[in-house]
Amino acid sequence: MTKNFTIGVIGAGRIGRIHIENVLRKIPEVKLKAVADIKIDNDLKSWANKIGVPNLTNNPYDIIKDSEIDTVIIASSTETHSEFIQQAAKARKSIFCEKPIDIDLIRIKETLDVVNREGVKLMIGFNRRFDRNFKRVKDLIMSGQIGNPQIIKITSRDPTLPPINYIKNSGGLFIDMTIHDWDMASFQVGSDIEEVYGNGAALIDPEIKKLGDIDTAVALLKFKNGTFGLVDNSRQAVYGYDQRVEVFGSKGCLIANNEPSNTVRLFTANTIKEDNIPYFFLERYIDSYAEELVYFFQILRNNEEPSPNGIDGLKSVLVALAAQKSLIENRPVKISEIDH
Amino acid sequence: MTKNFTIGVIGAGRIGRIHIENVLRKIPEVKLKAVADIKIDNDLKSWANKIGVPNLTNNPYDIIKDSEIDTVIIASSTETHSEFIQQAAKARKSIFCEKPIDIDLIRIKETLDVVNREGVKLMIGFNRRFDRNFKRVKDLIMSGQIGNPQIIKITSRDPTLPPINYIKNSGGLFIDMTIHDWDMASFQVGSDIEEVYGNGAALIDPEIKKLGDIDTAVALLKFKNGTFGLVDNSRQAVYGYDQRVEVFGSKGCLIANNEPSNTVRLFTANTIKEDNIPYFFLERYIDSYAEELVYFFQILRNNEEPSPNGIDGLKSVLVALAAQKSLIENRPVKISEIDH
Amino acid sequence: MTKNFTIGVIGAGRIGRIHIENVLRKIPEVKLKAVADIKIDNDLKSWANKIGVPNLTNNPYDIIKDSEIDTVIIASSTETHSEFIQQAAKARKSIFCEKPIDIDLIRIKETLDVVNREGVKLMIGFNRRFDRNFKRVKDLIMSGQIGNPQIIKITSRDPTLPPINYIKNSGGLFIDMTIHDWDMASFQVGSDIEEVYGNGAALIDPEIKKLGDIDTAVALLKFKNGTFGLVDNSRQAVYGYDQRVEVFGSKGCLIANNEPSNTVRLFTANTIKEDNIPYFFLERYIDSYAEELVYFFQILRNNEEPSPNGIDGLKSVLVALAAQKSLIENRPVKISEIDH
Amino acid sequence: MTKNFTIGVIGAGRIGRIHIENVLRKIPEVKLKAVADIKIDNDLKSWANKIGVPNLTNNPYDIIKDSEIDTVIIASSTETHSEFIQQAAKARKSIFCEKPIDIDLIRIKETLDVVNREGVKLMIGFNRRFDRNFKRVKDLIMSGQIGNPQIIKITSRDPTLPPINYIKNSGGLFIDMTIHDWDMASFQVGSDIEEVYGNGAALIDPEIKKLGDIDTAVALLKFKNGTFGLVDNSRQAVYGYDQRVEVFGSKGCLIANNEPSNTVRLFTANTIKEDNIPYFFLERYIDSYAEELVYFFQILRNNEEPSPNGIDGLKSVLVALAAQKSLIENRPVKISEIDH
Repeated sequence: MTKNFTIGVIGAGRIGRIHIENVLRKIPEVKLKAVADIKIDNDLKSWANKIGVPNLTNNPYDIIKDSEIDTVIIASSTETHSEFIQQAAKARKSIFCEKPIDIDLIRIKETLDVVNREGVKLMIGFNRRFDRNFKRVKDLIMSGQIGNPQIIKITSRDPTLPPINYIKNSGGLFIDMTIHDWDMASFQVGSDIEEVYGNGAALIDPEIKKLGDIDTAVALLKFKNGTFGLVDNSRQAVYGYDQRVEVFGSKGCLIANNEPSNTVRLFTANTIKEDNIPYFFLERYIDSYAEELVYFFQILRNNEEPSPNGIDGLKSVLVALAAQKSLIENRPVKISEIDH
Repeated sequence: MTKNFTIGVIGAGRIGRIHIENVLRKIPEVKLKAVADIKIDNDLKSWANKIGVPNLTNNPYDIIKDSEIDTVIIASSTETHSEFIQQAAKARKSIFCEKPIDIDLIRIKETLDVVNREGVKLMIGFNRRFDRNFKRVKDLIMSGQIGNPQIIKITSRDPTLPPINYIKNSGGLFIDMTIHDWDMASFQVGSDIEEVYGNGAALIDPEIKKLGDIDTAVALLKFKNGTFGLVDNSRQAVYGYDQRVEVFGSKGCLIANNEPSNTVRLFTANTIKEDNIPYFFLERYIDSYAEELVYFFQILRNNEEPSPNGIDGLKSVLVALAAQKSLIENRPVKISEIDH
Repeated sequence: MTKNFTIGVIGAGRIGRIHIENVLRKIPEVKLKAVADIKIDNDLKSWANKIGVPNLTNNPYDIIKDSEIDTVIIASSTETHSEFIQQAAKARKSIFCEKPIDIDLIRIKETLDVVNREGVKLMIGFNRRFDRNFKRVKDLIMSGQIGNPQIIKITSRDPTLPPINYIKNSGGLFIDMTIHDWDMASFQVGSDIEEVYGNGAALIDPEIKKLGDIDTAVALLKFKNGTFGLVDNSRQAVYGYDQRVEVFGSKGCLIANNEPSNTVRLFTANTIKEDNIPYFFLERYIDSYAEELVYFFQILRNNEEPSPNGIDGLKSVLVALAAQKSLIENRPVKISEIDH
Repeated sequence: MTKNFTIGVIGAGRIGRIHIENVLRKIPEVKLKAVADIKIDNDLKSWANKIGVPNLTNNPYDIIKDSEIDTVIIASSTETHSEFIQQAAKARKSIFCEKPIDIDLIRIKETLDVVNREGVKLMIGFNRRFDRNFKRVKDLIMSGQIGNPQIIKITSRDPTLPPINYIKNSGGLFIDMTIHDWDMASFQVGSDIEEVYGNGAALIDPEIKKLGDIDTAVALLKFKNGTFGLVDNSRQAVYGYDQRVEVFGSKGCLIANNEPSNTVRLFTANTIKEDNIPYFFLERYIDSYAEELVYFFQILRNNEEPSPNGIDGLKSVLVALAAQKSLIENRPVKISEIDH
């Protein structure tokens, strides 16, 4: 009954290593056969050795061509995702790929066509769905606790600006950062976004303005089922990584607040103090990365359709592109205008 | 140094009575001379007697023409506000008037012209500015604790639908209910709203849809100083009167949560429970009504300009009208399109 | 059906004035006829005039002898309580008296005998029972939500030291300050304290040590029904008036936390901040003073036995005396050792 | 500069396995050479194989005699601790041992004498000191944020009764369960307990009463530095594992509340709900087990004295024995009465 898997991982950067450590430590029934990274330096070698990676290669096709490997985790840079997904699909492997599939709509669709034609499983790494808080919100919605969702509100703010070079290649805030929120919104509401009005500005760093990008954003969403959504983002919340979801419905409301760093309150003559919330995604979401992989192998074992799947990956990019168009044209944009 | 005031109150409905009780009990240096209401029934008589109202009249002009009365509180129905403000202004009285001044832009401007020409003080009853929580948020913004505001979020949800007849005459959700939020948003941000994109639907009651009105609304705001805003409203939050404000800035964030009904938490084998938040505005905002009047007489005494004043009253209506236009045309609308 | 009352108030100090204002403003069906205070200065006169006190006398017997007055509120200094209760009882008046009845056991019993013999109602002003939070705890216990109480914990800390002269005449911390907690403990548990082990020291002010008194105290209680209790007191909690109750039972736990000053949280680069809790009893318990009087006239109207009554007043003093003995002899002391 | 260690673990039950997994996964610079357990069944073998234990033996002396092993972790049953500590000390190994060292005072002292004579390091596994919340409390006390501690309060309640056979051999609640609290109290206050008054009863299970043990306990502590302490325990808090610490001092107060299971709040027409707190120590304290071992190897590396050390282990047992005597004799008992 327990199907075992033999996997290979493509990309051993920050996220790739998290996946590898999670597989080795928390999913021992899965056999890691090889890890590929285009740049094998001493740091990677030493880490791989310590953690127990059996084979390290700089050629991802060593993994894709290995018939013993039945499952591939793709955590390489975004522009390589489509190619590796397609090749892995053609090699009939199950695939877990980091988000986004691609930032080019044509390539995403082409890739999903291949996945579809080959009949392989593809899961996209929207890890926040597996955060214990947001998952609990979803479960409570599904059990009918708040009736029909009517308004969803998502706050997603990073603690600090990334390097300007990162932003230059990020595809813009709506695709780089808000991508998680587009997915979270649809996930929680259980319906697709139909129209988006996105706005924003570079309020923090003039260099971002020069790039034509924004660092502060708000968006108003309409879903197919009638729900409304509000999203706000900032590249720089000086107090930490602010990640909240609220869903208001006909029978109640769910609010998932930030995780605290600890539960200590200090009462003094002047004020009551608490420590700041966890600093960034590695602190806040670390458990969700393990949870999503546990879930991935479970659906493989049960031969079920993964969720989020390739279509979910596509949808989040469609909304991002609509939001970008909305920002430029200062008007609400229907997803159907992008996805013709 | 202490100037005493002799006042008359026009309108002794629910809000009028709150003002009268507050004056009698909490501002004893102010002398209430008379109360006017078009409908003097036994209930009003008995209340007036018990509370100590010296004179009760069904003619508001008894108050406006009384030269001993230097200050008028107007809490009659909305359509009478403009007329009473103008008459009281011409009689050179200081005026406190409930919001909104009017729902007709021409009449508001005409009224403010009279006030301006006569040089009398006019304060508009946006009582929520005097809520201890929202006032604290404003104070902390003013003291620079969060740097420059970048995003403001306001949640304002009523616990239950008003009678359909009330809605019919309300002017629509954006003017009846969101009016407080337009004012709160500008108050906190310290800048005027420049553009609004409002959306909404009748998700709760199909009767409201038939009236062409909405019961669920969201709005995205742009302020002159570059701040963005998100507002959400519902006519029916089954868990109580949900009133929250959040202001995010370059140096921090302020969140004013709901007031609790009590501080008791019950831990059982199944769950942790708290009592619901206070049911409606009389519970939540009762203190703010007293605070705003205390402030009103204080600025009269100091001969200062009241805040919120008539211009603030006008601005909130302008945003409401822009939001309504936005809803109909499904596009962001600049306030300057309304206020030409 | 509605019985009206004509009352007199003896003692117009801080607490007396609170009672008078509450009667005048919140219980209008009760007629205040006279107020007595041994010291009628200009401040009192001006206050009485403003608030609408009809008669002011420096002779409490003007009230006790007035046959029109059916109900007396006693808020004079502690050493006069017994005498005024006895005289008012003999004059067949209903009595509300501030705690404690007396600090002398013999006199308390003598007083209760008179009350009993005359068959009048006597309520003792343990106002904290009427605090919305502690009342809610009691209600939830009574409705069986936590099963049988097993442990009660009470924290009661004042924000600042009273004048040393006050302490000198206070009867000691266990009778002056903890008296409220002895009553609260029995009230919540629904059983009498059987044994107390009290300890403490003067950790804050050496002057208090010189007086043989303590400023920091802890006590361990055993109740007749088997429940255990823990109480802690401090004369100086620099962060404000710390008033909490926790009751743990076989089916759950209830925690009544402090009331917040407001609900605003400030998130900055360094810390999360909230404003301190309300400063002292006038801020925290102001509503409970009105609630207890409303209740008092209600039980008079219904001809019911008040709670807390004279016996409750006696019991709290018994525990205080046992705790003092315990402190001196460093051993647990049974209430029966005091009450022979 | 980085000293590496070769370790053996004696005892591979629940806690032993946690230590082994922590060493293997989180302290990779430490080499695990062997694990000993008196009962090697298939479950243990399969776990050891999966996790990567190199050698499994049923003879603890294989570890103690192995000269390559420089450090021993003892997680076997309590009655074996003294013997293994002594043997490991004689073999000049560094030792980490689970609490308590022993429940017999003579044997503890004998054991500490051997440790002392041999000059080896001994750390006792009071893992709660390494809980992020309680550690934060300690750090804030040390940095002077609350001035001098005056009152400490510890709540420590298990979610459910252990098997009656476990209780039979536990040494009694004050030594089995409160042992953590005696240590926590001294740790936070930074001073030794001088006197304890402990009380309690079997309020939950009459079987426990038959054994002469208690399931509900309270204790009042006096510390050498003048601080007072209150501890309460229950074997059965139906709502989960209730673990809180509060320290009140001359300049403020610190409250470490329970960790939440998640941050989601559900608002409905009837109530506000949150999920219960984590169920038991494996959920609540799992991170603290890793933290204490990380710290252990760090102090070994730096050749520092561990804290908590053997003396701390002794002290907690002394207080437990004093509390037991106190319970029997119903009087406060000085630690010096036990430790003569």
